[in-house]
Amino acid sequence: MTSSHTFEPILRRIAAEIESMAERGRPADYIPALAVYDPRRFGMAVAELDGTVYGVGDWREPFSTQSISKVFTLALDLAREGDTLWKHVSREPSGNPFNSLVQLEYENGIPRNPFINAGALVVTDRLHTLTGYAAGTLLEFLRAESGNAALAINDGVAASESAHGDRNAALGHFMASYGNIENPVAVLLDQYFRQCSIEASCADLALATGFLARHGIRADGTRLLTQSQAKQVNAIMLTCGTYDAAGDFAYRVGLPGKSGVGGGIIAVVPGCCTLCVWGPGLDERGNSVVGVAALDRFTTLTGLSVF
Amino acid sequence: MTSSHTFEPILRRIAAEIESMAERGRPADYIPALAVYDPRRFGMAVAELDGTVYGVGDWREPFSTQSISKVFTLALDLAREGDTLWKHVSREPSGNPFNSLVQLEYENGIPRNPFINAGALVVTDRLHTLTGYAAGTLLEFLRAESGNAALAINDGVAASESAHGDRNAALGHFMASYGNIENPVAVLLDQYFRQCSIEASCADLALATGFLARHGIRADGTRLLTQSQAKQVNAIMLTCGTYDAAGDFAYRVGLPGKSGVGGGIIAVVPGCCTLCVWGPGLDERGNSVVGVAALDRFTTLTGLSVF
Amino acid sequence: MTSSHTFEPILRRIAAEIESMAERGRPADYIPALAVYDPRRFGMAVAELDGTVYGVGDWREPFSTQSISKVFTLALDLAREGDTLWKHVSREPSGNPFNSLVQLEYENGIPRNPFINAGALVVTDRLHTLTGYAAGTLLEFLRAESGNAALAINDGVAASESAHGDRNAALGHFMASYGNIENPVAVLLDQYFRQCSIEASCADLALATGFLARHGIRADGTRLLTQSQAKQVNAIMLTCGTYDAAGDFAYRVGLPGKSGVGGGIIAVVPGCCTLCVWGPGLDERGNSVVGVAALDRFTTLTGLSVF
Amino acid sequence: MTSSHTFEPILRRIAAEIESMAERGRPADYIPALAVYDPRRFGMAVAELDGTVYGVGDWREPFSTQSISKVFTLALDLAREGDTLWKHVSREPSGNPFNSLVQLEYENGIPRNPFINAGALVVTDRLHTLTGYAAGTLLEFLRAESGNAALAINDGVAASESAHGDRNAALGHFMASYGNIENPVAVLLDQYFRQCSIEASCADLALATGFLARHGIRADGTRLLTQSQAKQVNAIMLTCGTYDAAGDFAYRVGLPGKSGVGGGIIAVVPGCCTLCVWGPGLDERGNSVVGVAALDRFTTLTGLSVF
Repeated sequence: MTSSHTFEPILRRIAAEIESMAERGRPADYIPALAVYDPRRFGMAVAELDGTVYGVGDWREPFSTQSISKVFTLALDLAREGDTLWKHVSREPSGNPFNSLVQLEYENGIPRNPFINAGALVVTDRLHTLTGYAAGTLLEFLRAESGNAALAINDGVAASESAHGDRNAALGHFMASYGNIENPVAVLLDQYFRQCSIEASCADLALATGFLARHGIRADGTRLLTQSQAKQVNAIMLTCGTYDAAGDFAYRVGLPGKSGVGGGIIAVVPGCCTLCVWGPGLDERGNSVVGVAALDRFTTLTGLSVF
Repeated sequence: MTSSHTFEPILRRIAAEIESMAERGRPADYIPALAVYDPRRFGMAVAELDGTVYGVGDWREPFSTQSISKVFTLALDLAREGDTLWKHVSREPSGNPFNSLVQLEYENGIPRNPFINAGALVVTDRLHTLTGYAAGTLLEFLRAESGNAALAINDGVAASESAHGDRNAALGHFMASYGNIENPVAVLLDQYFRQCSIEASCADLALATGFLARHGIRADGTRLLTQSQAKQVNAIMLTCGTYDAAGDFAYRVGLPGKSGVGGGIIAVVPGCCTLCVWGPGLDERGNSVVGVAALDRFTTLTGLSVF
Repeated sequence: MTSSHTFEPILRRIAAEIESMAERGRPADYIPALAVYDPRRFGMAVAELDGTVYGVGDWREPFSTQSISKVFTLALDLAREGDTLWKHVSREPSGNPFNSLVQLEYENGIPRNPFINAGALVVTDRLHTLTGYAAGTLLEFLRAESGNAALAINDGVAASESAHGDRNAALGHFMASYGNIENPVAVLLDQYFRQCSIEASCADLALATGFLARHGIRADGTRLLTQSQAKQVNAIMLTCGTYDAAGDFAYRVGLPGKSGVGGGIIAVVPGCCTLCVWGPGLDERGNSVVGVAALDRFTTLTGLSVF
Repeated sequence: MTSSHTFEPILRRIAAEIESMAERGRPADYIPALAVYDPRRFGMAVAELDGTVYGVGDWREPFSTQSISKVFTLALDLAREGDTLWKHVSREPSGNPFNSLVQLEYENGIPRNPFINAGALVVTDRLHTLTGYAAGTLLEFLRAESGNAALAINDGVAASESAHGDRNAALGHFMASYGNIENPVAVLLDQYFRQCSIEASCADLALATGFLARHGIRADGTRLLTQSQAKQVNAIMLTCGTYDAAGDFAYRVGLPGKSGVGGGIIAVVPGCCTLCVWGPGLDERGNSVVGVAALDRFTTLTGLSVF
């Protein structure tokens, strides 16, 4: 699948630059399963519209997708229920750290956007109602788009997330108190922790994100989202995709992107390609230090940017 | 200057659609000078990279630029002091109504971004220090870019803004208490109210915005901003340009844009063209109802969008 | 036990005045079990230091104690662990509606005081750790002080509270995420809902509150709290006892008091007597309308007030 | 005026204990005029109902009254307009540091109580409207009650407060934007800074507070407040008088009190006496360290407490 291509020299150059970075942040340590990763790991993959994918470093190493999964559950739910979703979650930047309850209370249980934890819980809740198995629906989608049938939920990570899940339990019960959760909170949390515990590589995730660069078309040529919906998901990624650093990410990288505390970041160049980078060390806002740096370099070197 | 062009039929079609819109919101009424405009007024202009401009409706009618001015003072200040500015104002979406003091207190007097009122005051304060006359520097710039030497500050509007300026005075003094304002608050407010009271038409503002589509190059071919800075201003417009509706605007329109309570909105298609629409009736978040609708139609009909 | 006494004519006069009150608020309706009470019900009891108790109206009718229970769990926990408690809950007025999560987040999981729900959960959690059965310890205490062995938990109310307990579950999990809860949240909530579902009459509660007028001495002459601790509980009742209306209650009534959404209010005249009033209709801040009115009249007519 | 009396040995004992306190906090340093005081200074005075006053230490040394003045402007305004005041300021504890703008925004420009800065500004604004000279009305009252015609405004302190008054200017303009300020903000601030800059001794202030222990009766036997109003002012002092430490003060001291950043605290034992203590070193919440300690000891040693 790997081919020689114009982006490859750029990826090698970026990898060389990243190699010399001393300050790489610290891996997420709120659960033991994430704290074990070496912050010196680095991978980066680019997938073209036709499914060609290539990369550098640890680009075939699976890692915990975590919040990156929120992009896919959003798309899978939107594809099923369309604009009804927007009665239950807004699409405005949050302007607060990603777990904040303040704004949720201020706005009567309607989360600001689908990428803060509260909003992602609402999306998973609705997808679970529509499909009967939210995490399974997501896993099946990721396998199909990446062509990697080996993708799986890491049950140990899911159990560990659950054991440290009081904050998300609080969010779930709080929204339930406003009538904005349909499933029992315990059921929802189980789905959510499974969803976040799917492991995939940069290659897998760059491929799985392809439908957002192809204006809604899946790898097999069928349509998941309308062109308009695909643009809308990109817009939400740009404005809300990197926790409280969305403005900074748009300013530095200039692409729709979504990060996870597993150290991965996916990004979209609409009509051109998709990217995924991985580096376990996080900055104080929860985004991969080398991941943001690598994407910053990519858009600078290629001139690709939505602006 | 008007030429026949591919966008002209689209503008005419949009104008016809807007004509039939019944719900147009209400003009800003916090000062009498803004409340007089008829919400049935509508203008729209497109400026190409070479300075060709054309439009429909009231596209040559001057209106109060208000917060649209914040884009230009940001660019004029960035051109002079560069990244030093970012020690005094952040570039993250605010997630709160545009006058909120809450987040300002929470973040020790550093406004969230240059487009909320607090952040715009900081930018004007700094530009005033650097130039000795912030509002004059802005006026001169707008005249040069639009080629319209008749552009002027409406002193009556400025006086009216000042007479109703307690909220902005509170913001100024509050930031001054954190040491984040350099000029006397009264001097700053005078500059700020003048800046907001400059009147210009859709044609003028579409032309004046051109440097953001030309990656930093002014109308006369000289460079105002680096390519990187121009992209950054576009990124901030996309994430923060329409008050608390930035997410919704990105979702519906998909372009960097900036609105003002005078009913105008400017927007940028990087590398292609700039737009300005005007309709005095505002929605509950302070953005022109017909303006947002017209831009929504424009990107739908042309397929132009950064996503 | 009823005797002729100087307060009896005053109680009769108050009852007559209350009889003519048209506006009596609405019973709590968040659970069906509380919504059934007729807002025309009214009872009031006064207990003297020696255990003499008398009353008017429905003063022997059991009602749901709800948040009044928080005073007793506070005292029972303080008696056991003393000042260690204050590392886990503060004693400042909350300045926000009683269920607010905002301040809890702002202050890292340490509730503002023992009478907001979050603080009461912390107290019950700690009492449960110390006694193995918080709700049972409370019930035993209330039976002993009131001399009424028939006092019981209403299991139906407890189940109903639990079924509508998402807000309290959110609070519990949220504090647990800060490490401020010792027992499993489900165990804690079970204890808490049982505690709130104990039913007692005005007579029972006026008697049970007696230790706060006797500077810490229980009905049987043994000491529960030091004199200093008893004063401190009174101080917390005065500053925090009536949700977001503590200032207004202090202003109008001028006594330490604690209300519950079951419509009851207890009050203390230190060194003199204790009172309990009951009327199911609540004002918009969750306090019994006729209860506050009756206490207001009592302090006006008797001149008793701590000020 | 000094007489031998039962409290004198207690005052001497307290002074001896305070003498040995090592940790005394730091004087307010936001204006140079307050930073000069030696934190080893200490004074304490008790005034009986009949005007007898005695004290220890620096009890006749004038200091800056600062926020203590808010008690007197509240009483002077209440005496003139009665309950109308409560449409413009609430009487609930604030639950936030004393300068917070958050709650003010949340509650549409109506301050939580008359003792946070915002509320004190409203009271002074209204008193200024009613009397034409708020600070002068206050000065005249303090002179009359203390019998000390030499009391005066320290103009240097007032000028210094004004030069550092951005936070209060922000509050004033913010409330003006809600229509809750009647005078020009600059006029109001001038009155407010003068009011806070009156200098008086422990003896003066203990005497001037006497009307609150005499249920509203001034030193000359005339009535300032109704009995009910006097109780209400005491209630507000107890619940709101010591910034964000009102709960702690009620818990430790158990008396209505009001502190100022000049290091003074006044306190009331209703029907018995009034106290004033002074020590310039403040704790992190703005209250005199030795002042709170001295009052704590006083109520412990005498058994006097409203609880």
